[in-house]
Amino acid sequence: MSRPSTASPGKPGRKRRPGRPTGTAHTAAIRSALLKAARELFAKRDFTAASVREIAAAARVNPAMIHYHFGDKDGLYRAMLQETLGPVLQKVQDLMDRSGRESQTSIHDALEAVMTMLAREPWVARLIVREVLAEEGPFRELFIREFAAKGGGRLPALLEREIASGRVRKDFDPTLGALSFMSMALFPFIALPVAEKVFGIRMTDTFTRRLVEHSTRLFYEGAGHKSSRTRRDESRSRGGSKAHG
Amino acid sequence: MSRPSTASPGKPGRKRRPGRPTGTAHTAAIRSALLKAARELFAKRDFTAASVREIAAAARVNPAMIHYHFGDKDGLYRAMLQETLGPVLQKVQDLMDRSGRESQTSIHDALEAVMTMLAREPWVARLIVREVLAEEGPFRELFIREFAAKGGGRLPALLEREIASGRVRKDFDPTLGALSFMSMALFPFIALPVAEKVFGIRMTDTFTRRLVEHSTRLFYEGAGHKSSRTRRDESRSRGGSKAHG
Repeated sequence: MSRPSTASPGKPGRKRRPGRPTGTAHTAAIRSALLKAARELFAKRDFTAASVREIAAAARVNPAMIHYHFGDKDGLYRAMLQETLGPVLQKVQDLMDRSGRESQTSIHDALEAVMTMLAREPWVARLIVREVLAEEGPFRELFIREFAAKGGGRLPALLEREIASGRVRKDFDPTLGALSFMSMALFPFIALPVAEKVFGIRMTDTFTRRLVEHSTRLFYEGAGHKSSRTRRDESRSRGGSKAHG
Repeated sequence: MSRPSTASPGKPGRKRRPGRPTGTAHTAAIRSALLKAARELFAKRDFTAASVREIAAAARVNPAMIHYHFGDKDGLYRAMLQETLGPVLQKVQDLMDRSGRESQTSIHDALEAVMTMLAREPWVARLIVREVLAEEGPFRELFIREFAAKGGGRLPALLEREIASGRVRKDFDPTLGALSFMSMALFPFIALPVAEKVFGIRMTDTFTRRLVEHSTRLFYEGAGHKSSRTRRDESRSRGGSKAHG
């Protein structure tokens, strides 16, 4: 194995501190190279345990650079997720802020944002499985605080707005609904290695689009044939059903 | 740490072979004790990596007994899952065989069977996360073949029957529907450590029952308010809607 080439730290005397240093383009390039190398290592199907040393070797920088830029491996994971999940979390916030009136738009757009990201960046689901769900360490707490709470945690409020606007039925539980949304959005990616074999699916762009449309319609309309809906619903069907039209 | 007490193997000269030996009540008791100890170790929140040695120590038997009864750790996992998932897989098969006519029964019963089992045996979801989703070893293949294929793998056919019977709409995709079913049934348990914090839920018996009812109704009816369903659906609503009543 070739020894990774070393790169001189920007300010060698300075105490290492996680986060982007205010240094030169050179240090920014090293940070970038580390994030890219980590993403590529994680994207590999046969990934088992990317050590700090392996990531540094793949980026062709000294392992000390990971400590300099990210503090530790958890800091690197956090930076990777911030870059990739940031726009999705912003999208959920935008949907909250928007006074949209179109039917099905919020849930569709939120599902599309989450699922498209997970399909394009397969390392995200694997990182969640390995470092958040399977491990009980401090990274789980960090993930909950900085990502899950800002994504899934905002969904009950988004669903409450859908109820208030009349798009979602009054007796729908926003917390259980948020859990169902997260289930539909994340599980196909979390369980992809099994789903590929059991259902013969492949997470192509076309499949992802179909899954987004399917999940949106299932969420709003359900799978049931109209004539076999519950009697309660049927019996209160009115003559003019376009009151909200 | 106290040394685990040893138990004499039933047939010491015999070549070890996985699976229940045809031996005495004593060997059956040892097998039982090992399965119980493994379940208890797995049920602990702070579980990190139950080694063969730890499981044997907890069961107060010689580690060689694991090899004798189960071949290896994967064989032990397999036996644990067979005991617990067996009745659930049988339930799915029964639903397939049944010529039931009641609306919503199949999906409700299947969701209830899977979710009640996962709520009562929290080690199952953790075993799936750690040994199937996070690990790419031979146990994943075994799990897919012996459990996932016999559970989730039968759902598309079950949904096709629901479509044929008129309970599920004709344009519903049975494969995507099966994936959504598995998402709703498994994700709340797979992601429980995160969901507990983000949504403030606790997987009590009462909560599990609510989640089963919520998921069944979401699956068949969706969350949408009736008056805001797609125009396509609305425009074909007929005068008498109880044709299947």
